[in-house]
Amino acid sequence: MAKRQIKLGAFIPTTSQHAAGWRHPESRPQDHLSIDYAIELAKTAEKGLFDAYFLADGLSVNWSHGASKNANTIGYTDKAVGFEPVTLFSAISAVTKNIGFIATASTTYEDPYLLARKFASLDHISKGRAGWNVVTTSAADTARNFNFDRHPDPALRYERADEFIEVTQKLWDSWADDAFKYDKKTDQFFEASQSHEPLHSGKYFNVQGALNVPRPPQGYPVIVQAGQSEAGRELAAKYAEVIFTSQQNLEDAQAFYRDIKGRLVKYGRHADDIKIMPGVSIFVAKTEEEAQAKYDLLNSLILPDVGLGLLSGLSGGIDLSKYDLDAPFPKINDADLTFSSRQQLIIDIAKEHNFTIRQLYEYIASARGHWTLIGTPEQVVNQLQTWFENEAADGFNVLPPSTPAGLNDFVEFIVPELQRRGLFRTKYEGTTLRENLGLKRPENQYVVASRLQNSEAS
Amino acid sequence: MAKRQIKLGAFIPTTSQHAAGWRHPESRPQDHLSIDYAIELAKTAEKGLFDAYFLADGLSVNWSHGASKNANTIGYTDKAVGFEPVTLFSAISAVTKNIGFIATASTTYEDPYLLARKFASLDHISKGRAGWNVVTTSAADTARNFNFDRHPDPALRYERADEFIEVTQKLWDSWADDAFKYDKKTDQFFEASQSHEPLHSGKYFNVQGALNVPRPPQGYPVIVQAGQSEAGRELAAKYAEVIFTSQQNLEDAQAFYRDIKGRLVKYGRHADDIKIMPGVSIFVAKTEEEAQAKYDLLNSLILPDVGLGLLSGLSGGIDLSKYDLDAPFPKINDADLTFSSRQQLIIDIAKEHNFTIRQLYEYIASARGHWTLIGTPEQVVNQLQTWFENEAADGFNVLPPSTPAGLNDFVEFIVPELQRRGLFRTKYEGTTLRENLGLKRPENQYVVASRLQNSEAS
Repeated sequence: MAKRQIKLGAFIPTTSQHAAGWRHPESRPQDHLSIDYAIELAKTAEKGLFDAYFLADGLSVNWSHGASKNANTIGYTDKAVGFEPVTLFSAISAVTKNIGFIATASTTYEDPYLLARKFASLDHISKGRAGWNVVTTSAADTARNFNFDRHPDPALRYERADEFIEVTQKLWDSWADDAFKYDKKTDQFFEASQSHEPLHSGKYFNVQGALNVPRPPQGYPVIVQAGQSEAGRELAAKYAEVIFTSQQNLEDAQAFYRDIKGRLVKYGRHADDIKIMPGVSIFVAKTEEEAQAKYDLLNSLILPDVGLGLLSGLSGGIDLSKYDLDAPFPKINDADLTFSSRQQLIIDIAKEHNFTIRQLYEYIASARGHWTLIGTPEQVVNQLQTWFENEAADGFNVLPPSTPAGLNDFVEFIVPELQRRGLFRTKYEGTTLRENLGLKRPENQYVVASRLQNSEAS
Repeated sequence: MAKRQIKLGAFIPTTSQHAAGWRHPESRPQDHLSIDYAIELAKTAEKGLFDAYFLADGLSVNWSHGASKNANTIGYTDKAVGFEPVTLFSAISAVTKNIGFIATASTTYEDPYLLARKFASLDHISKGRAGWNVVTTSAADTARNFNFDRHPDPALRYERADEFIEVTQKLWDSWADDAFKYDKKTDQFFEASQSHEPLHSGKYFNVQGALNVPRPPQGYPVIVQAGQSEAGRELAAKYAEVIFTSQQNLEDAQAFYRDIKGRLVKYGRHADDIKIMPGVSIFVAKTEEEAQAKYDLLNSLILPDVGLGLLSGLSGGIDLSKYDLDAPFPKINDADLTFSSRQQLIIDIAKEHNFTIRQLYEYIASARGHWTLIGTPEQVVNQLQTWFENEAADGFNVLPPSTPAGLNDFVEFIVPELQRRGLFRTKYEGTTLRENLGLKRPENQYVVASRLQNSEAS
């Protein structure tokens, strides 16, 4: 059996991860809708042998990290708008060969037939390099764009997500892998008995099918999930093959890793069927001082209004503007809290690191709650290796603080050090995303059912 | 003013237009989901200086030209499945420079926010080469795939389409063209006052916006329409900039052309704002005999079951299997008729040409009701020129009977003859689809409204 190695996702918007990343001297904000620039980033990531290019997505304008349109930080963010990710990845796939594409799409606001179809198309077009990051959409104002009276509660969203994935996989199974014959002599283009209409009728969806796209090369595009809640973990254990998670320290990461892997058995799945990839934001240079200077440079570019808006947006509304930015972190009045898990996570970070408010938003700004590492290639890789070898991670979702600089740094400094230690590939293992991630190709559920039926009958 | 020239669309599925086109010796049915083959076709069309690559689309399996899944011709058609067109065109756009992309999408089953977003993305990615062929979806079994109790009637579909286009254009206008500033010094990524939420609340849609994609390079992707009914013509007159139409002879084509152009005035539009492009299927060779042999070859490959299924599917259900295929066209019992306009069109073709049933389905098979020309380059171009110069067409949507052969023939034989007569470009006029088609770039409706308001106030 091949040695277990680190899997890598590149979380690279054409803008930047860090809140002030677009103001970095090397950043090219004017190229945020340039396909040429997106291709350049993808080619850099492919040169770095990343498993996949990963893009977040939302279905409403991200005015300012969750702040309302009227907040005074409007206009400061580079994250308000962007490309539809499947459309973007399809274009990039035409000029790359190996890197995979994980596109985010919502089970709350999208439709299963249309979604199954676009991801199946992307998988065919990219020759087996598509992944679907399943989200239920957290931004409540999305409802305004979709004829909804109100944004559904998490419980309903997760119940719908479960049925949505089930329907989507049925649609992908509409055709046997070998249903298409192309026989010019007998005039048979396909074998009709090898198609199967899902005829799905459930609580949220009535979708009869069949899908009008043949089965994707990978069977199903790779299913990715990022929920941290109980419902999110259960959905991940049932369907996900990659988990993107936000973890701050080894102990928490291990607890999460073991919790998820432990849930797999009841779904008949093996620990290797799911790759857990915490997010990590890295500031790296030849010396520790240079790395720290990179971190400090970006943070010096955050306006206080933007930093406070970011904290408010990420924590579901918390107004810290009345407190001293540079005094020890204050006790927040209960009246100012919503007691969400996200809000608690942010307050915990301040306490753990003894941050002032300014230090907190600087820390958050770099990776919005993800793990942040600052140091030499050796120092950084030591940390990654510890997580990888101690049941905290199967790989990492890399969030370069700025693009292209942060991505270039990772490929230049981190990849060679990982390879030197035998922790990372020196060439791609296969041609599909599944092959590179070491994931099984799922069988067609209708073909399996028919085989079981036949063997029982005989 | 530049001389008026013919505009050309290439209607080239990766399968074939002719019902038996995929059985042509040069056809490559096994490549129907090969992105490399789709790119090869697009590059041929671009070499031929076509304005646009045009793809039809549906949201259900096209089992056999409209026949049900249980029909005995199941498996014979190459048109059951395919790519989602926006996803496909995005990939092709990355490896082409000038050709435009007209993707079909349904106003009955898609959602305006998602649709506005994917077309805006395609327009950015292709640098202004996107077009949207607006359809209301005719295949009734689409309802089965979308939680619908039943397929909506045409009147409702067209009313919804009108509001859908209105909402979509509002979403595309969510941002002024120059709303993004990218000012690293002042930390201003965009100017919030240059965004406008549509706040649309209508009969079918409540879409507040704004769209989370900046305004498309073309303002709006080019709007294309293909309806022939009264409601379809009125919708086209209001919004369409290209009309794809099916016309059998000069007189009918002229009547349609004049009717559409005549409807523009009441919408404040000019005759040049809309390009009328009838479909045409061409069998061309150096000699008339060779051209006829190409037509005969493809027709010899149509099985009678397939031919009859095709007639039935296209006419909304007509069973001709009890009649003699090679006798004069029979009188059809009223009980066997649905009296649809499409059915009447097909019966009229039989009467006009004095066809037997076999000859009728052979004729229909080549272009499914579109104009068919067989001859030398001179003979074919004479006909195209007559239509172009006599108010019957501003251009043509070319439906090669088979691919790649039929497309290659057009580029090899027809394009040079058109150019020799000064009827067609020798290089692309511009870089966007609008520039090549000679269409205006629409102004942003909110910017216009604000300008009017300001000039009234002063």
